[in-house]
Amino acid sequence: MNMVEIITRKKLGEALTAEEIDFFVKGAADHSIPDYQLAALLMAIRLNGMSAQETTHLTLAMRDSGDVADLSAIPGVKVDKHSTGGVGDTATLVLAPLVAACGVPVAKMSGRGLGHTGGTLDKLESIPGFRIGLSEEEFVRQVNEIGVAVIGQTGSLAPADKTLYALRDVTSTVDSLPLIASSIMSKKLASGADAIVLDVKTGSGAIMHTLEGSVELAKAMVDIGTLAKKPVTAVVTGMAQPLGTHVGNALEVKDAIDVLSGRTKGDLLEVSLLLGSYMLMHAGAAETPEEGRRKLTKALESGAGLEKLRLMIRAQGGDERVCDDWKRMPQAAVVREVACGKTGWVASMDTTALGLAAQAMGAGRIRKTDPLDYSVGFILPVRIGDHVWAHTPLCTLFARSEEEADAAEQAIREAITFSETPVERPPLWYAIVTKDGVQKAE
Amino acid sequence: MNMVEIITRKKLGEALTAEEIDFFVKGAADHSIPDYQLAALLMAIRLNGMSAQETTHLTLAMRDSGDVADLSAIPGVKVDKHSTGGVGDTATLVLAPLVAACGVPVAKMSGRGLGHTGGTLDKLESIPGFRIGLSEEEFVRQVNEIGVAVIGQTGSLAPADKTLYALRDVTSTVDSLPLIASSIMSKKLASGADAIVLDVKTGSGAIMHTLEGSVELAKAMVDIGTLAKKPVTAVVTGMAQPLGTHVGNALEVKDAIDVLSGRTKGDLLEVSLLLGSYMLMHAGAAETPEEGRRKLTKALESGAGLEKLRLMIRAQGGDERVCDDWKRMPQAAVVREVACGKTGWVASMDTTALGLAAQAMGAGRIRKTDPLDYSVGFILPVRIGDHVWAHTPLCTLFARSEEEADAAEQAIREAITFSETPVERPPLWYAIVTKDGVQKAE
Repeated sequence: MNMVEIITRKKLGEALTAEEIDFFVKGAADHSIPDYQLAALLMAIRLNGMSAQETTHLTLAMRDSGDVADLSAIPGVKVDKHSTGGVGDTATLVLAPLVAACGVPVAKMSGRGLGHTGGTLDKLESIPGFRIGLSEEEFVRQVNEIGVAVIGQTGSLAPADKTLYALRDVTSTVDSLPLIASSIMSKKLASGADAIVLDVKTGSGAIMHTLEGSVELAKAMVDIGTLAKKPVTAVVTGMAQPLGTHVGNALEVKDAIDVLSGRTKGDLLEVSLLLGSYMLMHAGAAETPEEGRRKLTKALESGAGLEKLRLMIRAQGGDERVCDDWKRMPQAAVVREVACGKTGWVASMDTTALGLAAQAMGAGRIRKTDPLDYSVGFILPVRIGDHVWAHTPLCTLFARSEEEADAAEQAIREAITFSETPVERPPLWYAIVTKDGVQKAE
Repeated sequence: MNMVEIITRKKLGEALTAEEIDFFVKGAADHSIPDYQLAALLMAIRLNGMSAQETTHLTLAMRDSGDVADLSAIPGVKVDKHSTGGVGDTATLVLAPLVAACGVPVAKMSGRGLGHTGGTLDKLESIPGFRIGLSEEEFVRQVNEIGVAVIGQTGSLAPADKTLYALRDVTSTVDSLPLIASSIMSKKLASGADAIVLDVKTGSGAIMHTLEGSVELAKAMVDIGTLAKKPVTAVVTGMAQPLGTHVGNALEVKDAIDVLSGRTKGDLLEVSLLLGSYMLMHAGAAETPEEGRRKLTKALESGAGLEKLRLMIRAQGGDERVCDDWKRMPQAAVVREVACGKTGWVASMDTTALGLAAQAMGAGRIRKTDPLDYSVGFILPVRIGDHVWAHTPLCTLFARSEEEADAAEQAIREAITFSETPVERPPLWYAIVTKDGVQKAE
């Protein structure tokens, strides 16, 4: 087989065979195919697309390019959850304890953040002492003992995806539906889950800009799951504003604790209950989403969810007292209250700009090797549709210096617009996609 | 400026600015942009195209990425000639002496062959002693003394094109009109000519497969020349069969000598007269193509053309006695006569297969560093439309061994089809493109 012929066929818009896909995926994993040929193929895929069959085969070939985690030592149905990346989205830290508190094992491998959205591992590492690097044995034992563990990848999962993902980032081929779907699903299938619940974000700051494109992506991933015999439900949610009110690593841990302790309601909780209810259904712990929601709400109200988080933090070496005393988390040097300065309704937020503002403060990485400052970020209590006065608090900044606070204040002010007339609240979710079809929000 | 943004704009089908083109051309020349980003951009250009303005700017930026030869020390209008590559196409060796014999200076830089078509430099080097590596000073002096010199590139002409051309070959992005046009024209403009005559081949074995595509390519290159203030005429010719009857390095030198000495008429002579007449017009030595043709024919009949070739061979250190005694050229170990074996009309030739057969015999390179055997190849006296009997000679093989002769015989037999009914002769040329428009053959 010849890489130039494979590129040529995709360039001409033809469908690649399973053997051709296996060939280039193997070459990506072992670096036997030069990056420039992979880059040309990626651009041809970006511009000429892939059929559902090609996309599924690409996913399976990437899954099989490395280790596939074996979670069979954990009894029960293991349900994984993945988000395509949102600002202030700490749903995993709310969901994992709540679902575990309902008796469903949560054995989750997470990633780090790159770009303007945070990574679950970074947030967990902001808890003093927390270890994300468990061995597979420790991981299985912890899930069997306390029902929940969130760790970094063990072994070499989908190394072909690693090569292609790094190339896509620098060759402007990230925004390709078959490449996104196969990248996400190959990693999820390799991490050993029995079923998967996906949060597909939509909107200008999301990986897919249009609702139509986001639903297509959701459908593609559900189809791949069906073919790979791993049930998948995908919820398409909005990115009109950050999901939670807290943005930054330690701050998002606080947001999750506030939700689990019942102090905070709102979109972060609602999306967590929505995703969680489908996780319970896939695990056989609920017949309907409504039943799942009731069980999760009970676990929340009884404090069982917060207790699971506490157990997980202790089991992974962290200081679980942060659940009661946030001062035990890293604290920023400068804390500044900022008022709206305008009277009217919150009309729009540039979520990407808000994420980039947090990144600039030190909460996110620009390069893979950048160190993070866990303490920085901001709390943004206002939501689109809220009525505000000039003196209403807009945000609280947590910064390393007055200069960085100034820059963040300006960036946040520029990212938020106000209206003199009432503004409708954006919907929380737009569509739920299962193997049986697409259910649109009313 | 940022390479990912440039790739993104071309991916979205937008036109690149002059600054963006300058940026990536500079990065290609000095290797500061990684090959994988250039490869992604090349595929985006292949699939989304470039406007005439972008193509022209790309050409000029590639020209300016290295040295630009200065031929001002040679009085008169210097006209260059370029062919997009044909099998048995040794027109340069016929044309350069004939045009020089008409008093027009020919200062030509040529290339080596790669793939199934031969390179002029390789053919010249098959002449014992011939030097293609003159200094710029020697080059200019020789043209001023005897009117003609054909050498390899001096200095570093269009290094950006060198990088991109090498990448295109391995990323399936050769067949892009703007990339072909800018590659050819950047080198021609850098080699210092005042005007250029192009032979654009068309057909299945050519760089452009359709007549329409070939005419588009010709128009694009003429337009670039017009904008760069270097007049260009492009003749679109067919590749239904090899141009001359000889294929192979020493054999093609023989073909040129046979034409210049009046022993051989036919398509090689006709195409040479056609291209040469436009060279004379551009140089101001003829008012019309007809006048150019008369002058060239006179130089042929008087023996002035052959005399110029003799002078050039001597000036460049070669054994000019080859013009009278072909036995002084490298001779093949095995010479075999092959008969048609069929009665009927020659119906078609797979020109690419014939070129590959010569390459397999040792006449062409598969890798850049492959050594050549100058002696090998074949003479193919039959032409499409000829009536033949079973005993009519089909070809004479010149091979290194009986085994290689067997393989070549089989390949040539498979490449040629016969018909039981008369077959029309293919036209010699299809279109002539100047800045004033397209003239189609009747």
